[in-house]
Amino acid sequence: MRIVVTNCNTTQEMTAEIVRGARAAAAPGTLVTGLTPAWGPASAEGWLDSYLSAAAVIDALRTYDGPAYDAVVMAGFGEHGREGVRELVDVPVVDITEAAAHLACLLGRRYGVVTTLERTCGQIEDSLELAGVARNCAVVVSIGLGVLELTDPARTESAFVGAAEQALSAGAEVLVLGCAGMTGLQRVVAEKLGVPVVDGVGAAVKLAESLVSLGLNTSRAGSYGRPLEKRRVWGRGG
Amino acid sequence: MRIVVTNCNTTQEMTAEIVRGARAAAAPGTLVTGLTPAWGPASAEGWLDSYLSAAAVIDALRTYDGPAYDAVVMAGFGEHGREGVRELVDVPVVDITEAAAHLACLLGRRYGVVTTLERTCGQIEDSLELAGVARNCAVVVSIGLGVLELTDPARTESAFVGAAEQALSAGAEVLVLGCAGMTGLQRVVAEKLGVPVVDGVGAAVKLAESLVSLGLNTSRAGSYGRPLEKRRVWGRGG
Amino acid sequence: MRIVVTNCNTTQEMTAEIVRGARAAAAPGTLVTGLTPAWGPASAEGWLDSYLSAAAVIDALRTYDGPAYDAVVMAGFGEHGREGVRELVDVPVVDITEAAAHLACLLGRRYGVVTTLERTCGQIEDSLELAGVARNCAVVVSIGLGVLELTDPARTESAFVGAAEQALSAGAEVLVLGCAGMTGLQRVVAEKLGVPVVDGVGAAVKLAESLVSLGLNTSRAGSYGRPLEKRRVWGRGG
Amino acid sequence: MRIVVTNCNTTQEMTAEIVRGARAAAAPGTLVTGLTPAWGPASAEGWLDSYLSAAAVIDALRTYDGPAYDAVVMAGFGEHGREGVRELVDVPVVDITEAAAHLACLLGRRYGVVTTLERTCGQIEDSLELAGVARNCAVVVSIGLGVLELTDPARTESAFVGAAEQALSAGAEVLVLGCAGMTGLQRVVAEKLGVPVVDGVGAAVKLAESLVSLGLNTSRAGSYGRPLEKRRVWGRGG
Amino acid sequence: MRIVVTNCNTTQEMTAEIVRGARAAAAPGTLVTGLTPAWGPASAEGWLDSYLSAAAVIDALRTYDGPAYDAVVMAGFGEHGREGVRELVDVPVVDITEAAAHLACLLGRRYGVVTTLERTCGQIEDSLELAGVARNCAVVVSIGLGVLELTDPARTESAFVGAAEQALSAGAEVLVLGCAGMTGLQRVVAEKLGVPVVDGVGAAVKLAESLVSLGLNTSRAGSYGRPLEKRRVWGRGG
Amino acid sequence: MRIVVTNCNTTQEMTAEIVRGARAAAAPGTLVTGLTPAWGPASAEGWLDSYLSAAAVIDALRTYDGPAYDAVVMAGFGEHGREGVRELVDVPVVDITEAAAHLACLLGRRYGVVTTLERTCGQIEDSLELAGVARNCAVVVSIGLGVLELTDPARTESAFVGAAEQALSAGAEVLVLGCAGMTGLQRVVAEKLGVPVVDGVGAAVKLAESLVSLGLNTSRAGSYGRPLEKRRVWGRGG
Repeated sequence: MRIVVTNCNTTQEMTAEIVRGARAAAAPGTLVTGLTPAWGPASAEGWLDSYLSAAAVIDALRTYDGPAYDAVVMAGFGEHGREGVRELVDVPVVDITEAAAHLACLLGRRYGVVTTLERTCGQIEDSLELAGVARNCAVVVSIGLGVLELTDPARTESAFVGAAEQALSAGAEVLVLGCAGMTGLQRVVAEKLGVPVVDGVGAAVKLAESLVSLGLNTSRAGSYGRPLEKRRVWGRGG
Repeated sequence: MRIVVTNCNTTQEMTAEIVRGARAAAAPGTLVTGLTPAWGPASAEGWLDSYLSAAAVIDALRTYDGPAYDAVVMAGFGEHGREGVRELVDVPVVDITEAAAHLACLLGRRYGVVTTLERTCGQIEDSLELAGVARNCAVVVSIGLGVLELTDPARTESAFVGAAEQALSAGAEVLVLGCAGMTGLQRVVAEKLGVPVVDGVGAAVKLAESLVSLGLNTSRAGSYGRPLEKRRVWGRGG
Repeated sequence: MRIVVTNCNTTQEMTAEIVRGARAAAAPGTLVTGLTPAWGPASAEGWLDSYLSAAAVIDALRTYDGPAYDAVVMAGFGEHGREGVRELVDVPVVDITEAAAHLACLLGRRYGVVTTLERTCGQIEDSLELAGVARNCAVVVSIGLGVLELTDPARTESAFVGAAEQALSAGAEVLVLGCAGMTGLQRVVAEKLGVPVVDGVGAAVKLAESLVSLGLNTSRAGSYGRPLEKRRVWGRGG
Repeated sequence: MRIVVTNCNTTQEMTAEIVRGARAAAAPGTLVTGLTPAWGPASAEGWLDSYLSAAAVIDALRTYDGPAYDAVVMAGFGEHGREGVRELVDVPVVDITEAAAHLACLLGRRYGVVTTLERTCGQIEDSLELAGVARNCAVVVSIGLGVLELTDPARTESAFVGAAEQALSAGAEVLVLGCAGMTGLQRVVAEKLGVPVVDGVGAAVKLAESLVSLGLNTSRAGSYGRPLEKRRVWGRGG
Repeated sequence: MRIVVTNCNTTQEMTAEIVRGARAAAAPGTLVTGLTPAWGPASAEGWLDSYLSAAAVIDALRTYDGPAYDAVVMAGFGEHGREGVRELVDVPVVDITEAAAHLACLLGRRYGVVTTLERTCGQIEDSLELAGVARNCAVVVSIGLGVLELTDPARTESAFVGAAEQALSAGAEVLVLGCAGMTGLQRVVAEKLGVPVVDGVGAAVKLAESLVSLGLNTSRAGSYGRPLEKRRVWGRGG
Repeated sequence: MRIVVTNCNTTQEMTAEIVRGARAAAAPGTLVTGLTPAWGPASAEGWLDSYLSAAAVIDALRTYDGPAYDAVVMAGFGEHGREGVRELVDVPVVDITEAAAHLACLLGRRYGVVTTLERTCGQIEDSLELAGVARNCAVVVSIGLGVLELTDPARTESAFVGAAEQALSAGAEVLVLGCAGMTGLQRVVAEKLGVPVVDGVGAAVKLAESLVSLGLNTSRAGSYGRPLEKRRVWGRGG
């Protein structure tokens, strides 16, 4: 089975990192193809970035011409677009935000999300709410580092542990890495904090594999019908 | 004062109609400038269209070089993008979805939305939820006509009345026109149905005028900080 | 257009202050008439006062014999009565509690209310809940001063700023003045705190003007039908 | 122990009926004193009536000069005022709306309320919500008869059974008589419908007796502090 | 009338204490019979204990062969089983968790629960939620002592007061004893803290008496039908 | 990896069927061991059965002495016990109710559950609520057949399709098989109905495999600590 994993931004290094995280989680027979949007923001940090990213990711999948694939994993934590991709493609679609939350719910009574910048917390709360998994989310907290500032593992780890403690005090029993760029961090912080830590990228890969292997696909009834035929222009240069 | 009213799609006729609706509602001293995105979908009907539209509308405002304006009205019912525009511009931003709901809440204990296609009902519910005004929404129903099929007023009106009756049975005491393209329909259907009918375009114009005249502007604390400086590419040709 | 602004208590000085606040917000063509109930509490601080006030305000409107008016603004923050007034009068009715919340929702993702005494916080929460706008309310906090203790602007301002900081820590991005008697304070505290501050009196005037100019009126379907004909006695001496 | 049972309207016949219902439920040692407000509406059917009633009932208790009492039962289904009475008196206060709901929750997973006129359904929903017992309420339905039209038992009973069937279809497993004037009806309709039917008057008497015998009284912390000293005028002639 | 009060654990001393608490609350004509399950946990502290307890309590009632009884009180705070007992017996069933919450709702706008160990807080929250009375619960806090460590009254009382202060800060206006083994503590801590404190055992006895005296019984419609005839084995030795 | 799949009842044939369903979903390297409780109900249909089942399943795992295993799947749809098993075992635990809901959320905006008897609908709603996945559940409907009446596939299928249509009308876009005994039915009804149908047994197997392969395990912080050391007796003969 092949899973296309979409980065939500145009930073190739981050796509590479995400692909590493996805491959680490994938089953032996699963091929992972990373997809970087041809346009969009260098990183998604806020609503403007997120909407730009949503359109760019949809466009990347719309114009994708690589080998056939069986599922899409959308690797932008808290970013928009998942419902649009569900309309577009004929395979299951899993967003890392919801994926992490789904698995976190199985591991404790309440979970918490630890993300990058304070300004993205609300967006993540909204994403969890609409995905139907916000009820058992105790809190979303931030570490105060931007998406592209996660390059120093020691600094990231230390900031993460500090914010995580706030989340645990607020009732979280399980933690979620609140950024695709944090993938790989889960084991070390889980060990330090003594609670399970879920990486959305890995979680989404497993859920995508699960849906594919069970023969399940997005419903076309109601919300996620195929896009209607019409004229659409995809960006300035069109 | 000048209000820029953004269409969510690329159909100029619809921008013209929206501008007509906005001007009919505007106070004497208010100038209304219509803005049609340079790219995006011909009409927004579903999530894929909506995300494409969100990016295109943000881009249209980002690159707008007309006369200075005091507020933005976003005229896409149930469409995404409002939070991103709040980050971008330095003036108040009102989305017609939330605007209609805010006024509807003042007119009855429960309101209902009557929109175009069944597939957009969920998106509207989500938009109302995140805007904080879903509690008193009894139901969102559809008339079964697409956005660009609203050109025959008699047909639209008759379909609207049928769907509206469902909404009233479900407990709505006030109705909302669930599409920018329905603007103008409010009086005739209100008369037929004997309940107030709120047009989002007019509602948003009045709310935008209200905010401007009270000297109120979007908060930069927390969620809607200015977009961070970074590289962004706006579409294929961008 | 004429708007009748009802004070919720019998203190004439406060009516005068509210009228000043309302006029400061009103459009050029809007006339503001203040209405002080002939009976009721000297100030409304708690449920007993609030119910007494509700009956007295309804009675004041029932027996009003001044010039015709186009809308009612009810200037008692968190006080009861708005639904009863909606039944009674044939023009739109806007309560300052809901009005402030509606506008606050347009300015940030979460808002907070800063009111007078701790004992009134719960009543305000209930009022926001039933108005359908509580979802995005982060918190209601109090400054520890009674309604008639707001006469020293410096003291009020300083107490307000202290309580406001609690509200901002609790996630509010926009603030609301939680008492009609605070009207006029919004600009100075907004400047100090760096976030938008909404005055309910001004907000309600703008919303009332909006409804009138859009030709919208309270629905008579369902909840707010006209009061049934029956014997009613309005108070002891009645 | 003595319980004062307040009618919410000025109709003496209804007070008498409520007192009969209360006495039928009272324990041997419990004395029931009926209290009819000196002013207010002849019946409470809608918000205007309800707010007028709230002030009148509070005034009736404020000026009550009969024998000392141990608890108050407020016999207006869905009517306002209970929090104000809690501030006023130094004994426990039980409203028949919440009382019926509390007992109904113990008898089935979901309950339904069957009330008089459609226009009062929303008010009852609000009352249950704020009392904290709305979660397990499946529905509030009406029989289409006004409060003072309940005088023909056969007609009331037949209308009740019809509306009750709607409530059962909507998931109710227990029913609540939604008007103080229905007291006494519970046994015959319970038998016809095969489900338990709770009368709020009886329920409130038992809850009041329970609180008194356990030595429990309204908390003065937070919301329900004693009314502050101030000038208050109770009605026109006041 | 006779009420069977079931302990949720096998510790006879605790049954005795619960019976004392129940008798202190019971009306003159009420007989209280304590019932200790023949199997199950020595104390219930967590979900595993609670499910074991639920089955054991149901079995104790299933095999009970004492004098006929009119109601069951289940004296395990936050423990499972009440719906199963409602299916089983032909008399009303009141669980002390819900009972305490029902009465607490009548005494203040928000209540708090003070229980034994941190690990049981979530279970209590769930129990209140499903009973339909969680809305007005401000918080559930723990004193850090296990069920069988409540034997030193001074220690219990002091730990209770400390935790209670947290609950009051979180908005509770009324407190609930969060363990059957705390029965008897209510008066002394109420006096110390200056707020009403509800004991679930006493509360449940009064509610059970209320239901019986009103002739109300569990609904057989929908959820709580009699158990279907089938083969069931009650434990290892069966 | 080895997964122990627990039947919630004592009917061996049903365990066999569940094991078939689990094996059909399992990855090549996954071994499935079925576990039938030594005691409990022949089928679980209602709360009494469910609590008895919860204790029996916990006991079965407590006394299990087969080969080591890596995860537990609890195959009782809507049945109690999962939190207790999470306390007991040192491997991840997935309940088929929550598992089906988690996957269903990924496939459409709203899902519906189609279960056996009407009396179990409420229990399933409660289970979804506490698992944190009820928000996007449109409805739970029943086919009117008991757990052990599912032996005639044609009858089951036809009853399922009828009930499923109700669920689709109520807004479900994805369906869930609401009983472990329905496992295997998903493909044929999905084809007939044109929407995805999720089998909880298969879903839980995939989620359990996912957790194991990601190295994730139940949190011991807060709710699901190991059971405390104490005396426990497991049933009558115990």
